[in-house]
Amino acid sequence: MRLSCASCGRTYALSDLVWRCADCHGVLDLTGFTPVMPPPGELALRRPSLWRYAEALPIAEPPEITLGEGLSPLVSAPGRPGVQLKVDYLMPTGSFKDRGAVLLVALAASLGVTRLLADSSGNAGTAVAAYAARAGIGCDVYVPESTSAGKVAQLRAYGAEVCEIPGSREDTAEAAARAADVPGIFYASHVYHPFFLQGTKTYVLELWEQSGGRLPETLVLPVGNGTLVLGAYLGCVELLAQGLIDRLPRIVAVQAAGCAPLATAFTDGLSGPADITPSGTVAEGIAIARPARGAQILSAVRETGGSIVTVTDDQVHSAHTELARAGLYVEPTSAVCWAAITSSGLENAVAPLCGSGLKSKPPA
Amino acid sequence: MRLSCASCGRTYALSDLVWRCADCHGVLDLTGFTPVMPPPGELALRRPSLWRYAEALPIAEPPEITLGEGLSPLVSAPGRPGVQLKVDYLMPTGSFKDRGAVLLVALAASLGVTRLLADSSGNAGTAVAAYAARAGIGCDVYVPESTSAGKVAQLRAYGAEVCEIPGSREDTAEAAARAADVPGIFYASHVYHPFFLQGTKTYVLELWEQSGGRLPETLVLPVGNGTLVLGAYLGCVELLAQGLIDRLPRIVAVQAAGCAPLATAFTDGLSGPADITPSGTVAEGIAIARPARGAQILSAVRETGGSIVTVTDDQVHSAHTELARAGLYVEPTSAVCWAAITSSGLENAVAPLCGSGLKSKPPA
Ligand SMILES: [Zn+2]
Ligand SMILES: [Zn+2]
Repeated sequence: MRLSCASCGRTYALSDLVWRCADCHGVLDLTGFTPVMPPPGELALRRPSLWRYAEALPIAEPPEITLGEGLSPLVSAPGRPGVQLKVDYLMPTGSFKDRGAVLLVALAASLGVTRLLADSSGNAGTAVAAYAARAGIGCDVYVPESTSAGKVAQLRAYGAEVCEIPGSREDTAEAAARAADVPGIFYASHVYHPFFLQGTKTYVLELWEQSGGRLPETLVLPVGNGTLVLGAYLGCVELLAQGLIDRLPRIVAVQAAGCAPLATAFTDGLSGPADITPSGTVAEGIAIARPARGAQILSAVRETGGSIVTVTDDQVHSAHTELARAGLYVEPTSAVCWAAITSSGLENAVAPLCGSGLKSKPPA
Repeated sequence: MRLSCASCGRTYALSDLVWRCADCHGVLDLTGFTPVMPPPGELALRRPSLWRYAEALPIAEPPEITLGEGLSPLVSAPGRPGVQLKVDYLMPTGSFKDRGAVLLVALAASLGVTRLLADSSGNAGTAVAAYAARAGIGCDVYVPESTSAGKVAQLRAYGAEVCEIPGSREDTAEAAARAADVPGIFYASHVYHPFFLQGTKTYVLELWEQSGGRLPETLVLPVGNGTLVLGAYLGCVELLAQGLIDRLPRIVAVQAAGCAPLATAFTDGLSGPADITPSGTVAEGIAIARPARGAQILSAVRETGGSIVTVTDDQVHSAHTELARAGLYVEPTSAVCWAAITSSGLENAVAPLCGSGLKSKPPA
């Protein structure tokens, strides 16, 4: 099992601790690993966590690190019988990012890493910090200065060093990248490290199992850096390769209109993210102007026959209120899929509720 | 199945919507229901939610109301091999109270109730409000004026009417009680309604299943109104009655030193809560000066050969920090059990992490 550059093909050992290709700065994928889904009869008897898919994961369950993450509930959507919602904020730190974080930290622990680095507007950093704490690994988290007090408090409670970076989210990513280039640093990046996608792919493995060995016609997914879209795509491709589904479900990825480099690129037929100037959005978790894996995201969505759509902040606000009035209290970012579903009348679809509303800033 | 007064024995129909005995004001229990645990082989194949114990519950799973609550993870405790923690904040609204709330709301829906009433310092009210929203039932929630902005925001997001009552928590309970006495009102009380305990008992049923058909020697549980202690006791008694365990585990219930009417009563050999003047505690979720089911709690703990102990706010703060440093971010109230475990050196014990740290007030 090695890391492989998506652009030039050069490979690296996992223990090299590279986070992007040293030659061409391309993103790295995982190679030399053949995932297998456990037989359904056996699967049914395993404990309810994402580790039930052991044979499909590149690392074994770490008993001292797991917090029981995964196998989130699939529930009916309010007023739309053809739609189901996967309550993916029912995770140890309150967001789906725990799926990826636990794999990254399990890898770091297996490599003997004693300190790691993360960057995030919040949820990914929080997830990495929690699992690092659980594993007894030191953790520096780079966040934009604008990050909410609640999220910073949570990071500090885990014992993480929080580095608040002035400027945009991209400035934070760049500061983290500079720190990550120091040799021997494990950059636990939800964007760059392919183990993160090995974790988020369990979203689809679970959905397949929970749906009785099938997938819906359409997966509606939020997209910023694409950690869930790419993970879901990976899961679908693996299921197809094993003959467990007979075609890829269509991925409808949702961006906020105020920051839509991928939706613009999709519409304009570009192979990489469009060059945009973000105008701001309430869906801060997906406000990513230059997604590093943008070309992979566009290619994946196109391969499924899907699309990348946008929703306005007004639509997000309405969707957020509608979900809460149905007992589903999520972060505004987590309402973008519901906004897309209600505005387009999608059927036979499943969307995730990615982040707990408890993470939102309370009103002043 | 009827409601039965614990003091005078008078019974009522569930549809009478009484919340305490009309004659003697005694608390009501459930009578005429014989719970049965499903056979282990069958159980293993059921979906991961508390509804897997269908035959042990007094009402059927409501498909349009459930949010996948229950079957929370059981994880190893940091640095204490003999202790496990049940991550019971991994619930739709972020606390174990969802166990009871979903049963109350399922009952309300089955009775055709269109509006219900709850009172709580936060977690129970939030849980009831969420499930009421999910069920399309109107909801008034009485809370003390001192309730955090985040909790009030969450209640309002669910569409609940929030009635903020000046004064103490007891003042809130009294205001709710007056409103509950209006005929036709369903008082979805986590303290008074025995269906709530039918929900919280699943904590023990899950623990039994997760531990391979046994229970630990000691259950360490927080106690304020006793919704978890009494639910856990009920679950243990049911397992014992069915021959699925051979003795009751010892219940060690934990109070905050600043508000310990039950610990005082236990030490002094009283049959009901001691008359105390609370001096305040950071563990606000269990700061209950006059628990309505106090006599039942004392009797249950004594029957198990257990005890009721206290922890200081300093111990709670330390325990809270220690848990977070191990990746477990909880409400201060949820740290009381860990404080008791670390200060007493308990072994072969399981304690719950009851409420998510995301519910805490962020620092100003
Ligand atoms: Zn390269
Ligand atoms: Zn009576």
